[in-house]
Amino acid sequence: MEELSVAIIGSSRCSPQEAKTAEAVGAELARRGATLVCGGLGGVMRAACKGAQANGGRTVGILPGDSRRQANPYVDIPIVTAMGEARNAIIINSAQAVIAVGGEYGTLSEIAFALRRGLPVIGLGTWSLPGRGKKGRSIVEARDAVEAVELAVEAAKATRRTT
Amino acid sequence: MEELSVAIIGSSRCSPQEAKTAEAVGAELARRGATLVCGGLGGVMRAACKGAQANGGRTVGILPGDSRRQANPYVDIPIVTAMGEARNAIIINSAQAVIAVGGEYGTLSEIAFALRRGLPVIGLGTWSLPGRGKKGRSIVEARDAVEAVELAVEAAKATRRTT
Amino acid sequence: MEELSVAIIGSSRCSPQEAKTAEAVGAELARRGATLVCGGLGGVMRAACKGAQANGGRTVGILPGDSRRQANPYVDIPIVTAMGEARNAIIINSAQAVIAVGGEYGTLSEIAFALRRGLPVIGLGTWSLPGRGKKGRSIVEARDAVEAVELAVEAAKATRRTT
Amino acid sequence: MEELSVAIIGSSRCSPQEAKTAEAVGAELARRGATLVCGGLGGVMRAACKGAQANGGRTVGILPGDSRRQANPYVDIPIVTAMGEARNAIIINSAQAVIAVGGEYGTLSEIAFALRRGLPVIGLGTWSLPGRGKKGRSIVEARDAVEAVELAVEAAKATRRTT
Repeated sequence: MEELSVAIIGSSRCSPQEAKTAEAVGAELARRGATLVCGGLGGVMRAACKGAQANGGRTVGILPGDSRRQANPYVDIPIVTAMGEARNAIIINSAQAVIAVGGEYGTLSEIAFALRRGLPVIGLGTWSLPGRGKKGRSIVEARDAVEAVELAVEAAKATRRTT
Repeated sequence: MEELSVAIIGSSRCSPQEAKTAEAVGAELARRGATLVCGGLGGVMRAACKGAQANGGRTVGILPGDSRRQANPYVDIPIVTAMGEARNAIIINSAQAVIAVGGEYGTLSEIAFALRRGLPVIGLGTWSLPGRGKKGRSIVEARDAVEAVELAVEAAKATRRTT
Repeated sequence: MEELSVAIIGSSRCSPQEAKTAEAVGAELARRGATLVCGGLGGVMRAACKGAQANGGRTVGILPGDSRRQANPYVDIPIVTAMGEARNAIIINSAQAVIAVGGEYGTLSEIAFALRRGLPVIGLGTWSLPGRGKKGRSIVEARDAVEAVELAVEAAKATRRTT
Repeated sequence: MEELSVAIIGSSRCSPQEAKTAEAVGAELARRGATLVCGGLGGVMRAACKGAQANGGRTVGILPGDSRRQANPYVDIPIVTAMGEARNAIIINSAQAVIAVGGEYGTLSEIAFALRRGLPVIGLGTWSLPGRGKKGRSIVEARDAVEAVELAVEAAKATRRTT
């Protein structure tokens, strides 16, 4: 069976609590055999990759800059886009579900791309979006990392027939 | 003096009221000599370009697809990116202020890119963003098209020294 | 009638002779009412924009970097891609014919994109490509700037029904 | 030690001989523990991924389209750029050496990006480029797949300190 790809999004600077959550998300994704896709930098991305790698998972870092050396040390496969924030769209396009841990405006752009694409978005203390979007699309807030991965994997299985 | 570029963002399908507002925004930008930058498609983009062109303004359409024929008929300068939604980042990077009329998730991604970049974002019935962003950055809601342009132009003059 | 867009490609550092040629190409494009599309930087791009602007032509600079201040002073409409060399594809996608003046590897990538897209490519002392490409596609070497523009405009009129 | 990434470039339609060569290149890269990066489609890309996967290697497909289903069945990690030919730049940016098997204009654009970036380019029946480029940069033609990989890996080790 084809492997599942799940994006973890969040800020390159984050609180110790967010880092702990992201690491747990990465670890749980690895245990379930999912590939972790992220922006490849620090903060939430680094913590998630660390958790995944420590549990034998595979980590892809889709970098904004021009060099693979920009990747955090837990990225297995650096993708060097050199296209700045526009690479956020590639992160989302390459995933079948998205888990957002905290996050600022870059994360918000990724949530927007994911909801536009119809991907499941699971939140852990991230943006809430009142109002305007299409019916049936919204961020599903999870209680903890394990539940977030559970929800993401289940939803991804349902959507991947169409992505 | 260098000309000002202002992005108008919003959905490719919009209500008649949103179209009317967008057309008025385009018209007012043209009267002030600003270049209108947008995604080049229908709905809010088309109405804004129409209003600008009718008043002698210049309109740039940064298209997601692979052909200039995708542009609405009021685009003077079609930019054919062929990079889908990732082109939203280019629209924002190419503007010195942003006016959002209504909008769905694509518009939300552009608002996120703009706030991340530190650009002024003026809203006319668009998303509201409670909470997480950096201090001093938010969407300023305007009462009408003329006020939106007024606010955008004033704010752009202040920021363009740095973009 | 829809306006014609012609890309001028070449190095950001060029010889005085190449600059003179590029300026003449820009001037001739302006006289014929074509929009000049280029990478927006120095060398061939700057000279071409200068020639066009001096003759009332319109100049679009599709920039690789993150700021409009990167544009040469003769760019009317800066497009800020922030996507580095990948923006070369956008320059070509946005044109209906291409004129290459001299050039190094960046120019070669643009020639390759143009021939792949089936656009006419007119050369003035640029790369020659022996061998591998599709039949009927190649660089047409012109004798001088006026002939290059003549050939580009004629060929563009034939191809624009399909781009 | 950090793993090596080598791009294989070539047409999505190729001769049986080119496919055989590409498969041998993929196999040899896998034996040496290098990650294969490619455009993820058919022809040379498919054959190379097949050869790599059969030998336990890792394959990354940087796709032009909007869906992971575009990937050939031997791609382990699909990157969904949705940015068309502009994704050629990302393939090159993500590699430390390049091996070209045959190829048309898309391949030529990738060779141009690679030489511009200063990456080693090894050829197996690909374009030859007389003339214009920077000194010391050119396509090194190899006799067979094993020699191509040998040359690519050696050259990549020398360059990766700078990419």
